[in-house]
Amino acid sequence: MSEDKRTSLEEIGEFGLIDLLTKKAKKRQDSTIFGVGDDAAVIEKNADDVTLVSTDSLIEGIHFNMMYTPLKHLGYKAVVVNLSDIYAMNGTAEQITVSLAVSSRFPKEALEELYDGIHTACEIYNVDLVGGDTTSSLAGLMISVTAIGSAKKDEVVYRSGAKENELIVVTGDLGAAYMGLQVLEREKSVYKANPDIQPDLDGFDYLLERQLKPEARKDVLKFLKELDVKPTAMIDVSDGLASELFHLCKNSELGCQVYDEKLPIDTKVSTTAIDFNVDPATCALNGGEDYELLFSIKQEDFDKIKGNPHMTVIGHFTSKDSGLYMIDKQGSAIELKAQGWNHFNKEETGK
Amino acid sequence: MSEDKRTSLEEIGEFGLIDLLTKKAKKRQDSTIFGVGDDAAVIEKNADDVTLVSTDSLIEGIHFNMMYTPLKHLGYKAVVVNLSDIYAMNGTAEQITVSLAVSSRFPKEALEELYDGIHTACEIYNVDLVGGDTTSSLAGLMISVTAIGSAKKDEVVYRSGAKENELIVVTGDLGAAYMGLQVLEREKSVYKANPDIQPDLDGFDYLLERQLKPEARKDVLKFLKELDVKPTAMIDVSDGLASELFHLCKNSELGCQVYDEKLPIDTKVSTTAIDFNVDPATCALNGGEDYELLFSIKQEDFDKIKGNPHMTVIGHFTSKDSGLYMIDKQGSAIELKAQGWNHFNKEETGK
Repeated sequence: MSEDKRTSLEEIGEFGLIDLLTKKAKKRQDSTIFGVGDDAAVIEKNADDVTLVSTDSLIEGIHFNMMYTPLKHLGYKAVVVNLSDIYAMNGTAEQITVSLAVSSRFPKEALEELYDGIHTACEIYNVDLVGGDTTSSLAGLMISVTAIGSAKKDEVVYRSGAKENELIVVTGDLGAAYMGLQVLEREKSVYKANPDIQPDLDGFDYLLERQLKPEARKDVLKFLKELDVKPTAMIDVSDGLASELFHLCKNSELGCQVYDEKLPIDTKVSTTAIDFNVDPATCALNGGEDYELLFSIKQEDFDKIKGNPHMTVIGHFTSKDSGLYMIDKQGSAIELKAQGWNHFNKEETGK
Repeated sequence: MSEDKRTSLEEIGEFGLIDLLTKKAKKRQDSTIFGVGDDAAVIEKNADDVTLVSTDSLIEGIHFNMMYTPLKHLGYKAVVVNLSDIYAMNGTAEQITVSLAVSSRFPKEALEELYDGIHTACEIYNVDLVGGDTTSSLAGLMISVTAIGSAKKDEVVYRSGAKENELIVVTGDLGAAYMGLQVLEREKSVYKANPDIQPDLDGFDYLLERQLKPEARKDVLKFLKELDVKPTAMIDVSDGLASELFHLCKNSELGCQVYDEKLPIDTKVSTTAIDFNVDPATCALNGGEDYELLFSIKQEDFDKIKGNPHMTVIGHFTSKDSGLYMIDKQGSAIELKAQGWNHFNKEETGK
C-alpha cells in the first residue's frame, strides 16, 4: 500500500466506510433473510418466525468517559442500546452475549459493578446472558454486546417499508441524552480547572439519567400491539433524529417533512439548551443517544395513536424528489443534513 | 469501592473472572437451551434444530501485533476463530457480524484490506456477513466477531458428554501457531535492535501460516459424518491442549490420561522448539491458537478412525478422582495444569 493511495477515515465518514466495507457481502446461506443495512440482521428460524441479531460496541474515550460514568450504568447502557435495535425491528429480545476487553488497571470489583448493570438490564428486559468473552486490553475498556431476538415473520418492520404520505411518529422526547452529556462535560471541565469545586449536577437528574442510563422502548411495542397499529417502517434513535430520518427515507426511497414545533422536547432540555446557547431543535435533530423509536404509520391509524402520551406525530413522508426538510415555526423549509456521528474526526468526546 | 477491597485481575485469572461475572446469569427465556460455559450458546430454533451463537474478540497488542500481522490475515483469522467455536458444537456456521473499533490513524485502504480477509473467510467457509458496527477507538484496533450457526438438536456436541474410558482424539497437529509466534517475536526483536537487518523467515512458512492465518476444522465434521462417528464431547483448541482437556474433564466430571508420545507435533515444530530451548510437548500442551478440534469417541468407534491422517488418539478419560495426567516417554505421570492464557499478567504479547 503506497502512501499516495491513502484516504483518511475522516474523509470517507462512518456511513461511507460501512457502505464500502460491506458492499462485497454476499448472500450464500438460504437462512439469511436480510443482512447489513437495518437495525438487526434477519435470519430464518422456522416457518413462522425469524431470529434477529444486532451488535454494538461502547468504547472508552469515544462513547463514554470513565470520569463520570458509573460502571453499573455503563453495563446497563451497553445492553439497552443493543436491545433497542431488536425492538426497532418489532421483535422480542431474548439473549445477549457480552465481549469485554479491559486493561489490568481495573480491579475485579470494578468488573463486578459493570456486570451488575448487565445483569440488571437482563432482568428488567427479560433477556438471558448466554455467552461472550473477557480479555485484556492495552488501554481502556471496550464492551461489545450482541443481542439476539425473535419475531413473527409477518411482523418484522424494516426501514424500507414506509410509503408516501404516511405519518412519521417518534416516541418519548428527544435531545435529553445530548444535553445530559453537555452538563457532564461542563462539570468535568470545571473540575479539571479546580478539583476543589464539587460538580453541580442538581436539577439535571432527567438529563443525566437519559445520558447515563437510557431505556429501550420495549413498552411502546406493547402499546402499538394493544392499539392494533403496525408501523410500516421503524428505526431507533441512536445517532439523532435527522440521521435516522435519512436512513428511513433512503431505505424507503422517500423524502420527508417534519415540523420544528412538533418535535417532542422536554422543558428541561429546552431551558438547558438555551443556557448552553444551543437551539433545542438542534439537540433533538442531531443529539443522538435517545434510544426512542422512530416509525411510520398509515394515515388511517392516526386516530388510534392521537393523544397517546408516548407518541408524537412529527411529520410525514413525501416523494423522494421532494428531499428531506424541517419546517420551522415561521413556515420556512430547512433542508436536513444526515450527520450521523462521525467519531473519526473527534479526538476525545464523551459520546 | 474502597481501595482495601480491590482485587487485581491477575489474582483472579481469566477463568475465575468469567465464573465470577457470569454466575448471576439466569435463564428467563424458554428459548435458551444452554448459556455460558461451552464453545457456543445453544438457542431453540424449531422442533428439530437449534441456533448456535459464539463471540470472540481480537485486540491489538494482546492478540496480535500490527508490526507483523498482515491486515488481510487478521480479518481472516478474526472470522475463523469464531467459526471454530460453532464447529466445536458440531454445528454449521451460517452468519457472522463484525464489530470494529479503529483509531483514525488507519487509512481507509487498511480497513479494506482487513475486510478483504473477512470476505475471503466468508467465501471459503460459506458464511454471510450480516451486520455489525464500525466505530473509532482512541488507540489501536479491536475486532469482535459473533458467529451464528445451526445444528440438529440431537447432533449438538457439548463439552459435558464424555464418559470414562472413552478415547480422546485431536485433529491435525499442535504447537505450530505458538512456534510461529516465537519466530515472529524473535525477528521483531532483531529488527528493533537493528532495522537494517531483514527478517529471516525462510523455511518457517508452515509455522507462520498457522499463527497468522489459521483454519477452522469444518472438514473434520464432514469426515466424522462420513465415518458415522459422533463425538461424545468436543471443544476447539484455542488456549492449548491442557486447558481444553481441563474444560472437557471439568464439564464431563472426569479425569484423563494423555500420552506424550502420541501428541501430534509437526517435525518443523519440534526442530524449531528445540532451537528455542522449549520442550515440543509444552508447545502442544500450552501453546494454543491451534484451532484444531479435541473430542472424545466411544471405544467401539476406534476402528472407524484408526489410521485417519486427520485424527490422532492421544489418550482416554478416567474417573474424576484420578486427576488429569500426561504419561511421558519414560512412563511417568505428570499432572496437567490448566493454564489457559492469562492475558491479565502480560504487558505485551502477540498472543
